[in-house]
Amino acid sequence: MPVPTIRWEDGRVIIIDQTRIPLEEVYIPIENIHQMWEAIKKLRIRGAPAIGIAGAFGVYLGIKDYFGKDIDGFLEAFEQSCRYIESSRPTAVNLFWATAELRKTVKDTEEKKTEKLKEIILKRCIRMIDEDNEVCLAIGKNGEKLIKDGYTLLTHCNAGGLATAMYGTALSPMFLARQNGKNIHVYVDETRPLLQGARITTWELLHAGIKTTLITDNMAATVLKNKNVDMIIVGADRITMNGDTANKIGTLMLGVLAKEFGVPLYVAAPISTFDPEAKTGDDIPIEERDREEVIHFGERQTAPDDVDVYNPAFDVTPAEYITGIITERGIISKPFEDNIQKTLSESSR
Amino acid sequence: MPVPTIRWEDGRVIIIDQTRIPLEEVYIPIENIHQMWEAIKKLRIRGAPAIGIAGAFGVYLGIKDYFGKDIDGFLEAFEQSCRYIESSRPTAVNLFWATAELRKTVKDTEEKKTEKLKEIILKRCIRMIDEDNEVCLAIGKNGEKLIKDGYTLLTHCNAGGLATAMYGTALSPMFLARQNGKNIHVYVDETRPLLQGARITTWELLHAGIKTTLITDNMAATVLKNKNVDMIIVGADRITMNGDTANKIGTLMLGVLAKEFGVPLYVAAPISTFDPEAKTGDDIPIEERDREEVIHFGERQTAPDDVDVYNPAFDVTPAEYITGIITERGIISKPFEDNIQKTLSESSR
Repeated sequence: MPVPTIRWEDGRVIIIDQTRIPLEEVYIPIENIHQMWEAIKKLRIRGAPAIGIAGAFGVYLGIKDYFGKDIDGFLEAFEQSCRYIESSRPTAVNLFWATAELRKTVKDTEEKKTEKLKEIILKRCIRMIDEDNEVCLAIGKNGEKLIKDGYTLLTHCNAGGLATAMYGTALSPMFLARQNGKNIHVYVDETRPLLQGARITTWELLHAGIKTTLITDNMAATVLKNKNVDMIIVGADRITMNGDTANKIGTLMLGVLAKEFGVPLYVAAPISTFDPEAKTGDDIPIEERDREEVIHFGERQTAPDDVDVYNPAFDVTPAEYITGIITERGIISKPFEDNIQKTLSESSR
Repeated sequence: MPVPTIRWEDGRVIIIDQTRIPLEEVYIPIENIHQMWEAIKKLRIRGAPAIGIAGAFGVYLGIKDYFGKDIDGFLEAFEQSCRYIESSRPTAVNLFWATAELRKTVKDTEEKKTEKLKEIILKRCIRMIDEDNEVCLAIGKNGEKLIKDGYTLLTHCNAGGLATAMYGTALSPMFLARQNGKNIHVYVDETRPLLQGARITTWELLHAGIKTTLITDNMAATVLKNKNVDMIIVGADRITMNGDTANKIGTLMLGVLAKEFGVPLYVAAPISTFDPEAKTGDDIPIEERDREEVIHFGERQTAPDDVDVYNPAFDVTPAEYITGIITERGIISKPFEDNIQKTLSESSR
C-alpha cells in the first residue's frame, strides 16, 4: 500500500515527484543522468536512503549509452558519472555511499566487457532497492507486533516510505498494521520549520488508507495527555551506543511528554543508523540551519529582519525517554548498552 | 520603552497598525467611528484589553460630533454607536465589557447636557488606558523582582504590550527589567499556527532593546535542556480557583518541559483573569478553531485536502507545573487554592 519512491521499469527509472506532494501525485520518468541530477538537486527525490538509490541509478543512466568497447574509456565515463551525480547534493552522505558501492562493484569484478559491466552495475542498483525494501519490511514486521487493533499512534517528521525505496522506517509498522486489517489512527506533528509531517507523512498515511490527524507540534502535549495515544514511533538520524538518539528537532519534546504522560516511545531505524564511534548523545554534533527557514514561510517574511534565530536541525533524545528501538534484527529493549552491543555483533543476514 | 498601542492625542486616537508588524512600524490616526470599526475588524488593533479600549474610543468618536442639545437624540446616537462598534468583532468579550462600562457611566451620571456627557464619556475612555497601564505596570513591577541581571527567559505567544494599552502582562516584567538596566535574553516560541510569537513578541522585545532569539515551538525542549534558561513567563486566558491555567496552545508543553528540566514557570495575568466559577481546568471548555489555520500558510496549502485536523486554540496547564502567578496584587505562590482565594478577597486598590 505504500508508494514506490523509485523503481526500474522498461529501461528507465520512475520516481514520484515529491515537490508536487501533497497536492498532486505525479510520477516522472528519468531517462538520463542529467534528469536524475536535476531530480536530486530540486528535491523531487529526497530522504537519505532514497537519494542513495537514485544516485546509483543516475550513474547507471550516465554509462548505459556508452557504445564503445574500450574498457578504459568506459571506466573514465563511469568515474565522470559518479562525480557528476555526487555534485547534485554534495552534503548527502548516502550519495557518496552509493557511488562508493558502485566503484567497489566495478573494482571487484573480473569482467572486462563493457556491455557486461553495464549489466553488473544495473544489477547492483536494483539490489539497492531490494535491500532497502528488505530492511524496511523487517523493521515493519517487528514493529507491527507492538500495534494492536484500534491503537492510536503519534509520529513526528517523515520517516516514511518516501524517504526510502518504499516502506520507510517509523511508518513501516503502521503500513503493515493497516495491511493486516488493523484499524489505527495516527496523529502527525506538522514538524516545523520544514513541515515534513504536514506535507509528506499525512499524504503517505492517507494514501495507505490510515486515519490521519494533523496537529502543530505544540499540540502534541494536549494530544498525549487527553487523546489516549497508545504509542509514539519516530525515526532516527543517528543512535549512539547507549541508546541516545539524534532525530528531527522536536523529538526530545516528545520524549519528555511521553515519559510524563506514560506513553511508550519507540525509535524505528535500520542497524546502519547506530554509530559505533559515538558512546552517548554528547558525541553528536548538532547541525544548525539557516535562519531563513524560521523567519520566512514560502515567500512571506513572518518575523523582524533583525531578530536572532536558533535553528538546530536535530535534537538528542536521551535513552531514558525511549522504550525500545525497532530494527530489522528485532526490537532492542533495555538495558540498551548491553542489548545494542549484542544486536550489532550478530552477523548480518 | 514599550510602544503605546493606543493613545488619545490632539482630539484623535492614534494606534499602531499591527497588521504592518513586524516589517513596518506605522501609526495611524483614527478620527471617526467608521475608521475604528475597520481597525478592529481588520485586526489593526488586537488583544483582548486593547480591543476593549479601542471600542470605547470608537463609541466616543461616534458621538463627539453630535451637535444637538437634545438629550434623547444624543442617547439614541450613543446607543447606536455602541451597537455598531460591538458588530466590529462580535466574539470579542472585551468589546462588550467596554460598551457596558460606557453605558453604566452614562446611566450613573446626573448630567443632562450633551457637551458635558461627551466629556464624561471621553474621560472614562482615557481612564481605561490609565487603569490598564496601572494593572500591567503593577504586574511588571511584581514580576521584575524575580528577574536577575543576566537572566535568560523564554516566552510563548504574545502576552505583550500590543495586546494591552502598553506594558502587557508576561512581557511587562521583561520591559521593566530592561528599563532598570538589567541585561536579559529572551527565547520566543514562534507559536503555531498563528505565529504571534514570531510576528509580534519578537518585534516588541527588540523594540525595547532586549536580546531576542526566535525558535520554533518544538525547539523549546532542547533550549530548556541546554541553554540555561532561568525562567519561563507566559500569559493566561483563564485561571481556575486551583491555579490550573488555560493559555495559548503549547503552554502545557512548556509546563511539562519546565518541570522535567527544573525551570520555574510563571504565569502573568491580571486578577480579572481568575474565573471564580471554574474550580479546576476540567471546567474550561477548549475552543477548536478552523482547520485552514493548520493546513494553510498564507496563500499556500501545505497538507493534503482530505487530512483531518485537530486545532485547539488553548490548552490547560495543571497547577502542578506552575511555580507562581504574577498579578497586580503580588505573586501568588503555592498552595494555590488558599492563596488565590486570599488574593481575590483583598479589596481591589
